[in-house]
Amino acid sequence: MASKPSIPKGTRDFSPAEVAKRQYIISIIKSNFEKFGFQPIETPSFENSETLMGKYGEEGDRLIFKILNSGDFLDKISLEELQTINYKPLTSKISEKALRYDLTVPFARYVVQHQNEIEFPFKRYQIQPVWRADRPQKGRFREFYQCDADVVGSKSLWQEVELVQLYDAVFTALGLKGVTIKINNRKILSGIAEVIGASDKLIDFTVALDKLDKIGEDGVKKEMIEKGISENAIEKVQPLFNFTGSVSDKINQLSILLTSSEQGMKGVSELQFICDNVSKLGLNKSILDLDVTLARGLNYYTGAIFEVAPPEGVAMGSIGGGGRYDDLTGIFGLKDMSGVGISFGLDRIYLVLEELNLFPETVLATSKALFINYGEKEAFYAMQAITKLRAANIKVELYPDTVKVGKQFMHADKRQIPYAVIVGETEMNEGKFALKNLVSGEQILVGFDELKNILSIN
Amino acid sequence: MASKPSIPKGTRDFSPAEVAKRQYIISIIKSNFEKFGFQPIETPSFENSETLMGKYGEEGDRLIFKILNSGDFLDKISLEELQTINYKPLTSKISEKALRYDLTVPFARYVVQHQNEIEFPFKRYQIQPVWRADRPQKGRFREFYQCDADVVGSKSLWQEVELVQLYDAVFTALGLKGVTIKINNRKILSGIAEVIGASDKLIDFTVALDKLDKIGEDGVKKEMIEKGISENAIEKVQPLFNFTGSVSDKINQLSILLTSSEQGMKGVSELQFICDNVSKLGLNKSILDLDVTLARGLNYYTGAIFEVAPPEGVAMGSIGGGGRYDDLTGIFGLKDMSGVGISFGLDRIYLVLEELNLFPETVLATSKALFINYGEKEAFYAMQAITKLRAANIKVELYPDTVKVGKQFMHADKRQIPYAVIVGETEMNEGKFALKNLVSGEQILVGFDELKNILSIN
Repeated sequence: MASKPSIPKGTRDFSPAEVAKRQYIISIIKSNFEKFGFQPIETPSFENSETLMGKYGEEGDRLIFKILNSGDFLDKISLEELQTINYKPLTSKISEKALRYDLTVPFARYVVQHQNEIEFPFKRYQIQPVWRADRPQKGRFREFYQCDADVVGSKSLWQEVELVQLYDAVFTALGLKGVTIKINNRKILSGIAEVIGASDKLIDFTVALDKLDKIGEDGVKKEMIEKGISENAIEKVQPLFNFTGSVSDKINQLSILLTSSEQGMKGVSELQFICDNVSKLGLNKSILDLDVTLARGLNYYTGAIFEVAPPEGVAMGSIGGGGRYDDLTGIFGLKDMSGVGISFGLDRIYLVLEELNLFPETVLATSKALFINYGEKEAFYAMQAITKLRAANIKVELYPDTVKVGKQFMHADKRQIPYAVIVGETEMNEGKFALKNLVSGEQILVGFDELKNILSIN
Repeated sequence: MASKPSIPKGTRDFSPAEVAKRQYIISIIKSNFEKFGFQPIETPSFENSETLMGKYGEEGDRLIFKILNSGDFLDKISLEELQTINYKPLTSKISEKALRYDLTVPFARYVVQHQNEIEFPFKRYQIQPVWRADRPQKGRFREFYQCDADVVGSKSLWQEVELVQLYDAVFTALGLKGVTIKINNRKILSGIAEVIGASDKLIDFTVALDKLDKIGEDGVKKEMIEKGISENAIEKVQPLFNFTGSVSDKINQLSILLTSSEQGMKGVSELQFICDNVSKLGLNKSILDLDVTLARGLNYYTGAIFEVAPPEGVAMGSIGGGGRYDDLTGIFGLKDMSGVGISFGLDRIYLVLEELNLFPETVLATSKALFINYGEKEAFYAMQAITKLRAANIKVELYPDTVKVGKQFMHADKRQIPYAVIVGETEMNEGKFALKNLVSGEQILVGFDELKNILSIN
């Protein structure tokens, strides 16, 4: 290989600074998941193809990365089959495993497979990479982490209340003020469709309504009419085009609008329970808002739908989302297992924190001091101190080679190490260390205990 | 899918308890890596096939998991090519990416690709899964974690000294006493081959010598003779068949045995530097031993070779290994970049800790208390307390549903939650909480502050 090596498109190398920042976010998400009683599981990176295929629609099937069977993958293929030169039927014959596409289907598979070991309700979290053969673009990668918390085995709406609190707890801990946690309910959407007498056009209706911000009321109405929703029907839900006020104002409007729909009124009552309790218990730095244009995951969510928008002024899509799905494990044959969960978008949260300059400086903290290497004897003297400092959990390093001192100081500088420790013959004879503050330039002569004290201050 | 779902052979689901234990080991390895000045990087799960293929020998090529190209992977294949029905040439045409096989080759690729951003010497650590299409067996999986620390860009033997200390620091922190860190040097092995006049038979010689423990002196000699090494040659290295005593005794014996070999004497002097300094600086709970039968990674190691054996009495293979390779990045066109590194075997360390019962109980700590759910009003009262407790970083949970109290207590029991908090009308009216210790059965009535105090004690 003569040319400089590269990595597959849509994938990333993470430098030490990037890993440190990502780990900072993950550790905050993780500790809050645990504080709320969620327990971690991990599932394999690849699953049997039959576990994943057909679970994400046709588009999803296409975007799942398939793993070629090991050994002679043509073994069981006839010449006739090959000659058809049709890759689709061939795929399942030469590939039996596929990379995880999300964490929800593997979780459902896990719950069904381990149902006898699991104590329900089961609150699990999972922070692992997933892979999608999507066309890479800004902020969209072929390998990325998902951070999911789900509860399975309880229909209690207290879960929804807690999940809103969990979002707030994480974003508060990250120092992110003014995040909007948008909530909607699938039953509200069904109710609306019922009221306008176009239940069969629910998806068209919500897709159009979702564009309200982008194309305005007229645009949305035009699209609805094009999709075959009557002007008369649209008239009935006119309040939705100017849907403002507090969350309880909005709930009141909905309860009038949806009076005739049993489903809709069930959605209203669910929303009311969740929003009332969240409001009475209080949020820290986030805002809860009811957004009837929210229609994500319409295919599988059956109750609450969540989506989290970054603080105003940050141009970025949603940084989290989730909802309730009444039949999480039905696809694997275990019926009547309700689940509700939320997800955090690690990559986007990273970009938001970067943009708002919210990463604490300590995240990038590297070694506290670099011991300058003046030769074998001096290095041994240094290593004695280093060994003791490390035993006291202080991060220190010896420059490994006896090279020009200037080069060693440059190394400390480039690595942003705040102190250099200089040990020459004089210091050795006195049993001391010359400690140089590389920011102020100040240098002092200290004994080991003082050295340890200074370096242990954060 | 009617049958119960399963996962691909050689892969594993990890339950909450297993994840907690694995995370415990990883966090100790990670914090010690950082204490020694190593910085984390992460590389993509899959690399371009050309990055990996040909780097691990023919066997390795076979065991690398290949990813099928997305879309119509037959697009560029002619009918003639297909009709040859030979999977080997076909592989590179329908698959351009492959799953990471280890962390060393991706690290070498990373160093070359990012050489202008990296400040050398570069101490990096990497803790990520790797995949191998090996035949699964006890303790061998198709997906497993590697935990590697390597330094690149310095030939200093202080690195080897520090890596031995690092092994000791990690195993000491894990409470593992009596781990043996075995060291050898590739130059010693070359020296031996030179002395016996069979440099071309070095691999045969070491493979045979490596079996000393298993097949004994006679068996090894028999195998050596079968491989064409003369009795006379074997005679010259007779001391190696009864090679005992302290590390410095052994080094002395080697310096006599290898006097005539320049390479061999270089190996002796390297070993002497490393072992002397390790000994003078002192190890905590581990033992350093010189083992001339150690010949792992003979194809790529050029200096020190490490292998770590679990404490005596634990029947388990090596729990770590590593060494120096003088030309880490040459495969990607960057010459003269010496590297040295070590690896920790997560799965085996897990089994050793399990066998010796060394996981601290706190590792499995789940929520501190379960609030029993007596109904909507009581649950709200509980949620007020829960919200405040969580804000104080105390892990507590509300049982989400209003079901029979016995079922709720059973849940706390099965989850090993140590306390239950009972809130009925009496407690609410008094503004109190009945706190039941589920181990002792003792129950006391407390105010919020006392509740918080008791639950915050670990």
